Amino acid sequence: MPEAFDPAQVPGLCGGGGGLVGPLHALAEKLDAAFVEISRLFSAEPRYHFPLLPVEVMRRLDYFSSFPHLVVVPASAEPSEPVLRAFRDANGASATGPLAMPAALVPVDAVLAPAACYAVYPTLGGTLDGPRAVTLCGTCFRAEEHHQPLRRQRAFRMREIVLAGTLSEVRSFLDRGRDAVLALAGRLGLEVAVAAATDPFFDPSRSPLYLHQKLFPTKHELLFEGDLALGSFNHHRAFFGEAFHIRCAEGPAQTACIAFGLERWVYAVVRRHGSDPAAWAALPL
Amino acid sequence: MPEAFDPAQVPGLCGGGGGLVGPLHALAEKLDAAFVEISRLFSAEPRYHFPLLPVEVMRRLDYFSSFPHLVVVPASAEPSEPVLRAFRDANGASATGPLAMPAALVPVDAVLAPAACYAVYPTLGGTLDGPRAVTLCGTCFRAEEHHQPLRRQRAFRMREIVLAGTLSEVRSFLDRGRDAVLALAGRLGLEVAVAAATDPFFDPSRSPLYLHQKLFPTKHELLFEGDLALGSFNHHRAFFGEAFHIRCAEGPAQTACIAFGLERWVYAVVRRHGSDPAAWAALPL
Repeated sequence: MPEAFDPAQVPGLCGGGGGLVGPLHALAEKLDAAFVEISRLFSAEPRYHFPLLPVEVMRRLDYFSSFPHLVVVPASAEPSEPVLRAFRDANGASATGPLAMPAALVPVDAVLAPAACYAVYPTLGGTLDGPRAVTLCGTCFRAEEHHQPLRRQRAFRMREIVLAGTLSEVRSFLDRGRDAVLALAGRLGLEVAVAAATDPFFDPSRSPLYLHQKLFPTKHELLFEGDLALGSFNHHRAFFGEAFHIRCAEGPAQTACIAFGLERWVYAVVRRHGSDPAAWAALPL
Repeated sequence: MPEAFDPAQVPGLCGGGGGLVGPLHALAEKLDAAFVEISRLFSAEPRYHFPLLPVEVMRRLDYFSSFPHLVVVPASAEPSEPVLRAFRDANGASATGPLAMPAALVPVDAVLAPAACYAVYPTLGGTLDGPRAVTLCGTCFRAEEHHQPLRRQRAFRMREIVLAGTLSEVRSFLDRGRDAVLALAGRLGLEVAVAAATDPFFDPSRSPLYLHQKLFPTKHELLFEGDLALGSFNHHRAFFGEAFHIRCAEGPAQTACIAFGLERWVYAVVRRHGSDPAAWAALPL
């Protein structure tokens, strides 16, 4: 295992982690293709969702109570002449420091997606006639106090495979998915472990959802070097099925998702195989 | 040409334009692959950039003076207990209407990308030894007062091909690119026209950049049905070359970009060929 690396020295990582170019981009594309290959085990339907989620959807999931510290919203100036002129004048080419914010903002009715799969559940309402799987890759946004290129970013990509169905269908999905993900990590020489985890709730002692996760583990993470979650396996029970009226023969459908943090997999490969792109190109991807 | 269509009736368009699924997603993927094929004419390097642009970069381009009305920024709550608790309590599951914003926001040092290519120019600094082309597809965000699914969205995808080089290299890129884009539109049966245009400046009479665009047309749009820009051809002269120290043998490099609004091309195909996915699948893509 190479020493901890300086991301600034990784060929293809743009200033501060603003982008991936050249062989590093090609590596990310190949990793994502490998995740899509896993999704085919479940005949997952590929799709795309824009990374804006209605506030009313997130409220229905009580997201703001559970994770207010992670929320990022798209904010823009109230479109009135005085507000726009003052906003413009305060942010001319000679201004410095953080943005001078507009004096008034447009009311916010959407949040930037904190995970790719939230957009999917509201579209699955109705009665399933068998397990239904979907895959998508989305740009996600989270408020983060510290930035580490590829490891912890305010904007990052997440590939997800989502399945809705009966309890046994969802369990089979998670079992087969975990085996496929572990096999992929093994092919890439990544030493990983699967461990029970909880979501990063705000004020967990007051959160019924946190207590539920502690009592009935529903989240497992794929840990690299013991502390970096490359992905996760999540069994939501009937949480989304009840919220969005997704039904199966047994009643409210169960759902689960398998999530891959694309840039974190890139990080793990570079950490494991070094920063020479020839080593990445030689991987069985 | 079919009648103007109700987007809610297009199979695969999720509620209000929140996503593309099934054959509509496949159509978007094929269109994007056709744009990438055009980029190969210029040996463009494929890459990915996260849709966050530093405020200091956008100030250097005087973006806030030109387009304050389009700016969307990522806003999150100041991470202090009282602010987060109040934000949480005001947005519980029983709240309604727009989001109750946090009482204090984290200082904003980045904006959500209004176009895909802005992320590229700052990375091209240095001396070119020939034309350099890049292609990327990015999620873009613009403040819009009215939302029309596929036609005008607050979040949308933009594929761009960017070239930096000498004046003659940039002119050749725009000429060959325009021909290739017109050929693609022709293959798809889309009646389009190329017309000189200006960017949607705020307060144009006060904007030196607007006056410059009027005097020396640098932007041409690919118009569908006379009013919907499916894309644009932009010659920035040495604007980005000077701002980011991109040089060629002649001095500051010139740059140009060809932009494709992915969802607008999807719209045009559906408008032209109807909402039966079999018609899309039969297109020479």
